[in-house]
Formats: sequence, C-alpha cells, structure tokens
Amino acid sequence: MSDEIRLAVAGLGTVGAGVVDLLHRNGDLIAARAGCRLTVAAVSARDPAKDRGIDLSGALWHDDPVAMAGAGGHDVFVELIGGADGPAGQAVEAALAAGTPVVTANKALIAEHGAALAGKADSAGVALSFEAGVAGGIPIVKAMREGLAGNRIGRVIGILNGTCNYILTDMRRSGRPFEDVLEEAQQLGYAEADPRFDVDGIDAAHKLAILTSLAFGVTVDFAGVSIAGIRKVTPVDIQFAEDLDYRIKLLGIGALTDSGIEQHVEPCMVRRGSPLGAVDGVYNAVMVQSDAADDTTYEGRGAGAGPTASAVVADIVDIARGRALPAFGIPAAALKPQRRADAEARRGAFYVRLIVRDQPGVMADIAAALRDEQVSLENVFQRGRAPNDPVPVVLTTHETGEAALKRALVRIGGLGTVLEDPCLIRIEDS
Amino acid sequence: MSDEIRLAVAGLGTVGAGVVDLLHRNGDLIAARAGCRLTVAAVSARDPAKDRGIDLSGALWHDDPVAMAGAGGHDVFVELIGGADGPAGQAVEAALAAGTPVVTANKALIAEHGAALAGKADSAGVALSFEAGVAGGIPIVKAMREGLAGNRIGRVIGILNGTCNYILTDMRRSGRPFEDVLEEAQQLGYAEADPRFDVDGIDAAHKLAILTSLAFGVTVDFAGVSIAGIRKVTPVDIQFAEDLDYRIKLLGIGALTDSGIEQHVEPCMVRRGSPLGAVDGVYNAVMVQSDAADDTTYEGRGAGAGPTASAVVADIVDIARGRALPAFGIPAAALKPQRRADAEARRGAFYVRLIVRDQPGVMADIAAALRDEQVSLENVFQRGRAPNDPVPVVLTTHETGEAALKRALVRIGGLGTVLEDPCLIRIEDS
Repeated sequence: MSDEIRLAVAGLGTVGAGVVDLLHRNGDLIAARAGCRLTVAAVSARDPAKDRGIDLSGALWHDDPVAMAGAGGHDVFVELIGGADGPAGQAVEAALAAGTPVVTANKALIAEHGAALAGKADSAGVALSFEAGVAGGIPIVKAMREGLAGNRIGRVIGILNGTCNYILTDMRRSGRPFEDVLEEAQQLGYAEADPRFDVDGIDAAHKLAILTSLAFGVTVDFAGVSIAGIRKVTPVDIQFAEDLDYRIKLLGIGALTDSGIEQHVEPCMVRRGSPLGAVDGVYNAVMVQSDAADDTTYEGRGAGAGPTASAVVADIVDIARGRALPAFGIPAAALKPQRRADAEARRGAFYVRLIVRDQPGVMADIAAALRDEQVSLENVFQRGRAPNDPVPVVLTTHETGEAALKRALVRIGGLGTVLEDPCLIRIEDS
Repeated sequence: MSDEIRLAVAGLGTVGAGVVDLLHRNGDLIAARAGCRLTVAAVSARDPAKDRGIDLSGALWHDDPVAMAGAGGHDVFVELIGGADGPAGQAVEAALAAGTPVVTANKALIAEHGAALAGKADSAGVALSFEAGVAGGIPIVKAMREGLAGNRIGRVIGILNGTCNYILTDMRRSGRPFEDVLEEAQQLGYAEADPRFDVDGIDAAHKLAILTSLAFGVTVDFAGVSIAGIRKVTPVDIQFAEDLDYRIKLLGIGALTDSGIEQHVEPCMVRRGSPLGAVDGVYNAVMVQSDAADDTTYEGRGAGAGPTASAVVADIVDIARGRALPAFGIPAAALKPQRRADAEARRGAFYVRLIVRDQPGVMADIAAALRDEQVSLENVFQRGRAPNDPVPVVLTTHETGEAALKRALVRIGGLGTVLEDPCLIRIEDS
C-alpha cells in the first residue's frame, strides 16, 4: 500500500474516540510497525459539536455513515457504531460493495451476519476484520486464526462478558445477592442501565458464536447457541462452590462432538486455581483446547476504550501491511454449515442444589428419581437444621447425560418436599 | 506462492519429528488454512536409519544441514537442530543467503545472533520466524508483534521455563528441597541430565532477550540479561511466601525505564491468585503490560513435541500465506541499540529472609543496616525458639532501591549473629 492509510471512522463513542486517541498518541510507533502512517480522513457520528477530547482536524465530517462508507477517499472503513442491524450493517455492506476493507468491533453484526459479510468481503477481495468484537484487548481472533493454524481445535471455553464476571466476583467476595451487586455495578458504570444484554448471556453468546466459527471452520450460528445468564446464581451456590474448591463463572463453550457442534453460554463451576478459575473482576479469558498446542489460555480486559482500540488498530495495521486474511481464516465459501449437536447426547458432571423440607424420606425420593435416569452421584451434602425446616441439599454427579439429569430434576422439582426449583450448574473440570 | 510449499527440515529430534507428524496428521486442515499443501521435501539428521515413527517417504535425505540449506529445491528452511553456534547457525545463514525463508525453534540462536540474522533476512527479503523459540505452543511472538501493534509496551513478564516452574511447584506441594525435587524431575524426564541450562536461568534468559527486543523495538541483548536461577530457593522461603499469600516463580522481566531497559531473570514472589501466580507445573505464561490493551496474559505449554510443532507450523503457514513480517516486527535496521538501564536505579519491593542466632540486639543491628541505606520495612516476622537457637527472620520492604538494599544485606550478612547468606527475593505485585 501507499505511505499513508486513510481511515473513515464511523461512530465516535467511547471506542471510536479511543481509536482516534490511540492513533494520535502512538502515531510514530504504529507507523513504524505498519510501514505507513494511519490517518483519520473521515468521521461520522451523531453530534458534530460534541467535545470528545480528541483531535479531528483534517477529518471530513459525515452525518451519514452509510454515505461515508460509499463515498471513497479512504482506504479502510472502521465501523464502531454497533448493533446487528441498522446503519452499522448497512455501512459495512456499503464499504465492502465499494471494495474497501472493513475493521469492526461489532460482535452482534458478525455473530448474526458474519458468514454472509465474509462472503461479500471475499468477493470484493478485501478484509473484514473483527478482533475487537471478541474479548476486547486480547488478540484471541489472531491467536485462533493464525497462531494455532496447525491445530485441530476441539473446544473453546471463554469468560466472555466482563460485567457478568465482575458481578459473580463481587457476589463471591461480598456474599450479597445478584440484585444488590447488579445495582451497585450499574452505579459504578460496570453494568448498563439495561443490563439484559450482558447478564442474560446474549453478549457472551455473540462472542462465542464467532469463536466457534473460527475454531471449527463453520458458518456462524448465533441462533444455535443455548443461552442461560447469571440471574439465577445465588450466594448459597457460590458458597457451596467455594466449599467444593470451585468458582462459578459464566462460560461460553463451543465443542466439536461426534454428533455435531455444541454451543452453550451458561454459569459453570471451574476449579479455583485453574486458568479460568483464577480470572476475576472485569477480565475476560479464553481457553482453546487443541491437538498439538494442547490448552492455551488468553486473558485480559474484555472491554473499555483502550483495549478495544488496541484490537481495532491491530486489525488496521494488518491491513496496512497487506496481511489481511479471509475473515474466518479460510474463504467464506469453504466454511461448512454448522451441524448442531444432538442435545440429548450432551454429557457432563453437574452440581445440583435443592432446597428441601428436612423430613424422613426426602433423600430416598431424590435418589430414586436420579437412579431411574441412570444418574450416578459423586457427592451428597445435606446439613440438617431443625426437623421440617428448609435446608439445602447439594449433589454432585459423575459424568452423566445432561438431558437425563434434567428429566430427573423435573421429577424432583415436583416432589412436595422440594421447596424451590432445583438449581443445576455444570462442572467444567477440563 | 504456488499450490505447494516444499519444506526442508533440519533436525529430526522430538520437535522435528513432531513437526513432520503434525503436517501429516492435520494435512488437509493446514492446507485449507495455508491455501496450499505443505510437504516435506528434504530432511537432515544424524542417523538416517533411526525409526522416528514418522513417514519420510518422498523426502530427500541430507547428511549435512548446511549443504541442504544451500541446495535449493525447497521454499522454506526449518531449523530444528538447536544451539547458538555450530551447524544450526550456519544452516540458517546458508538458507538466508540462498534467499530462502527460515522458520526456527532455536531460542539460543535468536537470542545471541537475532539482530544480525534479522538483518540478513531483510536483505534477502525473506522471513526469519521464531514463534517456537519462546514459550512453545503459546503464540506470544505473534501476539506482541501483531496483536498489540497499536500499543506502547512498558513491561513483559514471563514464566518462561517449564522445568523451573515444575520444580518450584513440586517443592511447594511436597515441602521437599530443590535437590530432591530436581532428581525426581530428572527421573521423570521433566529435567535434563545436565539441568544447568534450565535451573540456572539461561534458557529463560534466551527467551526474555527475544521478548524484550519484540516489546521495545531494540536489538536483542542477551548479554544484558541479569540472570539468577532457582537453586537457592528453599522450602522455608516457599512456606513464608505461602504465609504472605505469594507464590515463588522464576520470572523473566523486561522493563522500559527512564534510564534504559532492564532485563532480569530471577525468582520472584507473585500474588497467589494473580495471572502469573496461578500458573503451575510445566506451564509457561507471559504477561504483557501495555498502554492501550493494559495487561494481557498468555498461558500454555512451553515445551514438548506438540506445542513446539504447533508454533513451527503457524510460522510456516504465515509464510505460505505471504504474510511474513520482519523478524522483530519492524525492519532490523530500524531496531534501536539496547540501552541498558542503570542498575543502581532499579527499584522494587523485596522479601528478605535471614537465619539469625536468637539473642538480644540482633534486630537492632539489622534494622540499623537497613536504615542507613534508607530501606523502609513493611513487615517483620520473627518466630523465636529457644534462646541462641538459629531462627528465620523475614522482612518485607516497601518499594526501595535494589542496590541500596543489597549493600545493606552485605553488611547484615557480615554480622556475627547472622548465620547464612541473606536470601533476597523480589516481590512482583504488578
């Protein structure tokens, strides 16, 4: 490429301003690594008058990001608007149609339309890069797509949402319930006013869908992700996890199995001292299990202006260096359709916590329901208080069929002596 | 490049055989990612008759790796012989002179001759890639050179030698002294018969020198690494570390300071639950502290046939894709000479353990020596036994000048009541 790469930046929120700031701050360093200067030639955002604390002199202002994307005059289009549909997607399509490489931080867009967009990028012969869409400042897309290129990947497991990890960490340290901790996290700016996207697991599922596609060379299948958030995790379960030497983390798990690909976002127990068990607070981490490198784990900040800008700039530098690859590592046309695994075939070890009335025969009924579904127990803990008081009963299972266990729990939940819906948490000991 | 990349592989030990095996085992997958097939066109090793359990049919046998490197007939030269001098270096030079890209796992070669070789690669316009030289299966070279390209890196800190980490982990778990654990590690194959390269920190220093160069854009300066190994770490210190909520790890630390670049390999205390504190056994991990991404940490197996082969193949795939970069991310001619930091200026917090005779006045003498060097103490632990018995005294300092503290320790070591050389361990709380 030339001795200058001109960028059109759509979206000047926290991330957009962070990218412009980083390009200025480390301009000489980045130019040395990119082999050319990266300059902001055009920008688009809602309010041209707003003071963002960044220098936009020399950049052409556009009110419409889609028009900017198609207008030419730049070498790379940087999409930092967000959202799976609407102007972000239209602008990316317009840029690709104009033959312009695209860098985006938009996980929702890639998770929901990644395969189609990758095809358009391939047709145009340009890059579609989204390092910033997964796990912020951690170069996990590059690691999987390039660093592990010699490996057959079997599973990818990640702590992919910093808000959830912050809340779970705080619940553990403070002993407080979810609602209290969420409220405080909102006040501190670690959780959004509308927290559903984070705490219900959707954001993590977007990221998982992208990682799964990278791992297994298949089309992105966000709709195929089974999603459970963290609302039902209680201080009681967090304390039992501690007693068992586990930590509860919201994990995204993509796995290649005999029957197809499993994609789950759900609270899981991981060993306290394990690579994922040691990740606290707003940090993200991804473990990739592969046949040659074995387990490799990547940890860092999953959000924020600096980390996200770091990922965006890395993608731009790759494009400037002429090193762009197909979006998912192989041509979009070579991505196989994602065959979803048979849910009935999923296996695992589990933690089950019940609240029961402490009276004779309770355990016999519970044990019978589990036996009838061939569920084999590893441990049972029951701490009696006064007779007839509600007490927690905790069971851990050996590896067992998940569907069978869930059937048993439906039956157990229907027992008169079982006072709340059973709590089921996967134990992820890998 | 063409639809086939022909490799010449020099060295068929554990790593070389692992590379050939991986290329066969995952051939289709690798071809899809590389855009072409990778074939082993030529090999060189000492004993052509030895059964290595790999298929070498179709590969031309060479007795002399240097002659093979210059003979042509291949697109990439893969150096897996090892050693900073001798045939490995000659073969790499011959390959570069012939205009052939080189992939190597040879940390000693790059640490001691990296800048010169990178210059030759640049002159020839070909790649010199060494992902496998640092931290085995962890794609840390790629992460630093590309994934963090937008960042100004301030420090890089790594657990870079799996043998040392295995020994320290085992010492902690078993309470046994260094010599016992080393002997068992040798029997189990986790340590070499001649363990000096590992336990004295030289191997870690080779890797650190490479990481420092990548981090700060400077020429490799292995001779500038201050090196201490793990022989002097005792079970007593490991237990005190536990009591203080630390773990002892052999760290390589490269830091950019006001007075220049610091490079140290030394046993350090790190917080138990921190990203590096949680890394046990043969695992390696590297934390990169940078201005935009903040701390990112990379963990995995640092050695072994599979992990090393994974890194070698990733480098070959990058070359096959036409994505080769200058060896250290920027042209060798642009690497600045490494200005070594003023040793007198180094600061830090420290753990000091003394064995003293438990009699009146000991603490007063110790405290006076520290005061005279302006060393400020954070904690002092002394557990008395019978009077006049030898007892350990542990001090931890606030941030202080390392040189001043060492001067104080020379004076303290000379006290008649101090029975052994003081043990000094840096506390790395970042």
